[in-house]
Amino acid sequence: MSTSVKAFGTEAKDKPLKEMTIERRELTLQDIEIDILYCGVCHSDLHTARNDWGGTVYSAVPGHEIVGKVTKIGKEVTKLKVGDYAAVGCMVDSCQSCDSCNQDLEQYCLNGFTGTYNGKDKHLGGRTFGGYSEKVVVDENFVLKIPKNLADSNLAAVAPLLCAGVTTWSPLRHWNVKEGSKVAVVGLGGLGHMAIKLAKGLGAEVTLFSRSPSKEKDAKELGADTVVISTDETQMKLARGKFDLIIDTVPYEHDLNPYVSTLSVNGTLVLVGFIGELDSMLQTPTMIMGRRSIAGSVIGGIKETQEMLDFCGEHNIVSEIEEIKMQEINEAYERMLKSDVRYRFVIDMKSLKNN
Amino acid sequence: MSTSVKAFGTEAKDKPLKEMTIERRELTLQDIEIDILYCGVCHSDLHTARNDWGGTVYSAVPGHEIVGKVTKIGKEVTKLKVGDYAAVGCMVDSCQSCDSCNQDLEQYCLNGFTGTYNGKDKHLGGRTFGGYSEKVVVDENFVLKIPKNLADSNLAAVAPLLCAGVTTWSPLRHWNVKEGSKVAVVGLGGLGHMAIKLAKGLGAEVTLFSRSPSKEKDAKELGADTVVISTDETQMKLARGKFDLIIDTVPYEHDLNPYVSTLSVNGTLVLVGFIGELDSMLQTPTMIMGRRSIAGSVIGGIKETQEMLDFCGEHNIVSEIEEIKMQEINEAYERMLKSDVRYRFVIDMKSLKNN
Ligand SMILES: [Zn+2]
Ligand SMILES: [Zn+2]
Ligand SMILES: [Zn+2]
Ligand SMILES: [Zn+2]
Repeated sequence: MSTSVKAFGTEAKDKPLKEMTIERRELTLQDIEIDILYCGVCHSDLHTARNDWGGTVYSAVPGHEIVGKVTKIGKEVTKLKVGDYAAVGCMVDSCQSCDSCNQDLEQYCLNGFTGTYNGKDKHLGGRTFGGYSEKVVVDENFVLKIPKNLADSNLAAVAPLLCAGVTTWSPLRHWNVKEGSKVAVVGLGGLGHMAIKLAKGLGAEVTLFSRSPSKEKDAKELGADTVVISTDETQMKLARGKFDLIIDTVPYEHDLNPYVSTLSVNGTLVLVGFIGELDSMLQTPTMIMGRRSIAGSVIGGIKETQEMLDFCGEHNIVSEIEEIKMQEINEAYERMLKSDVRYRFVIDMKSLKNN
Repeated sequence: MSTSVKAFGTEAKDKPLKEMTIERRELTLQDIEIDILYCGVCHSDLHTARNDWGGTVYSAVPGHEIVGKVTKIGKEVTKLKVGDYAAVGCMVDSCQSCDSCNQDLEQYCLNGFTGTYNGKDKHLGGRTFGGYSEKVVVDENFVLKIPKNLADSNLAAVAPLLCAGVTTWSPLRHWNVKEGSKVAVVGLGGLGHMAIKLAKGLGAEVTLFSRSPSKEKDAKELGADTVVISTDETQMKLARGKFDLIIDTVPYEHDLNPYVSTLSVNGTLVLVGFIGELDSMLQTPTMIMGRRSIAGSVIGGIKETQEMLDFCGEHNIVSEIEEIKMQEINEAYERMLKSDVRYRFVIDMKSLKNN
């Protein structure tokens, strides 16, 4: 027995999103039902809706930056109770038994994690539906707790932590950023602005690489110590050999070589924004003569996501957001494509419920 | 007051190597004079002699896999005494005070290490001259001790440990290879055969990637558990997601993507053989969806080189070599270009002294 709920999704790659009805499963013993209050809008939502990466099955309902309140729990649920704030990120399941899952690295599940949307639904068949909806039902192992101070003060701005936040947090932690580390961030969007805040929260000295001097004021307000204009050769030369870690959030093809040169000995540039093929030819001398690395990273594990939320609670870190109504999503996508957002759209789900 | 010694070198990039006379400096308080008994022949020797990388200053005397006996020591030398076996690798000096040097990473000296040949000679001016000579004078901080069992049993075969050995040892140690680690080696030449021996010595399960099935017998004799033919798609598919570390010794441009796919979650492919520009486009999804890295690494620090030599002493590891006379060096270079050597030429320096 499933429950029908209102959602917003699309029937084809070239169609706008519109209201539709989807089914949410009856709760298993481990499931939590969440009344969705806000949902962040991630670039992956748009890419999935438009089938930019292939593999989208329609109808598609995006949304994986979900915050809300628990409305029902399965009999064996211990993590949360009815009335608690709860969050869901990019994953709603994984095999929970492979080497990766056993190391709290569900994002690298060797059997493939179940995406919050467009993932293979193990319960109802078909594909999973995301957070652009009234409610969601998720295994408690994939539900996060929201620190009370953040939930009480700015719940909407917590939503983007679930994808943009943990996507930048995970490499910061994996590559051991701490007090005094030198971190650079390439690109100032949803991911980039979270990378600055979180790296700063960890005590790092933070630099933003940007192609545009107009970003300087914002970057510094977000916590960056320095802005390096990447098109200015003199500034780039001065930055050589400097950074322990570079978080590269740029979502399109770009030349990595100028950034690799700014890594310190043993430094790593980690790609978190671009899924595709890098055209530029890697210069191996820079890598070899300083043991420099280029790596990739995707989101973060569930334990790590909770750690990040708790850290944000302690340090009062949330995303910079612009609230929109569910009905404004198609216009929001167009604005995202022009980078016309500071720095994340978040949907107020009242707009869907009250429609 | 310097001393004239016989050497073998070249006057121009298109001229063969021939006998010449070079000067060795008078010993400082920290210097050690070594009577060179054997010198290994590295690909860098050839590239420097022919100015393949630019930057060669002539006359050039290659050779940075040096073993011999101490014949004289400066007054403050404590590391070795006259009559001891001694070795010199790729570096004869560094600033000894930068962040890298302070971490025993002289190979990444921020002020540039002094190469054993074609390096800027801080004592006599001009360029340093390498091991294709009767004697060499080196600061004791850059002289290594040779385990007695290896010196007594097969001194010539110790020489290649000083470059080929430590170049593969350093990444094995840096990326924490231990009992049960899964290591793959790309390419079976001077570097590759040492990588197999050393990884096996550390207790790893070792695979060789090779384009040619003819290498299988040799690889297994050297210690490889498995050989994967890299041109066989079925074999490559079966190897997906398998290796914690890949040591890529291939000295020319090649596509990294098929190898990156065989890395495990958190795995690293480290380039040690190719100095140049990689033409192939990196596929970021494979890197991102498994936190896989591509890195570079060059030789190793002095402390690490001694550690490697001691390890080789304990595990009775030496290089596979073919001894040649100094006068055969030009022919040896031609054979190296055709990969016609198993697996390292080593010059018996008696041939120069007795000429
Ligand atoms: Zn996302
Ligand atoms: Zn799993
Ligand atoms: Zn060498
Ligand atoms: Zn130094």
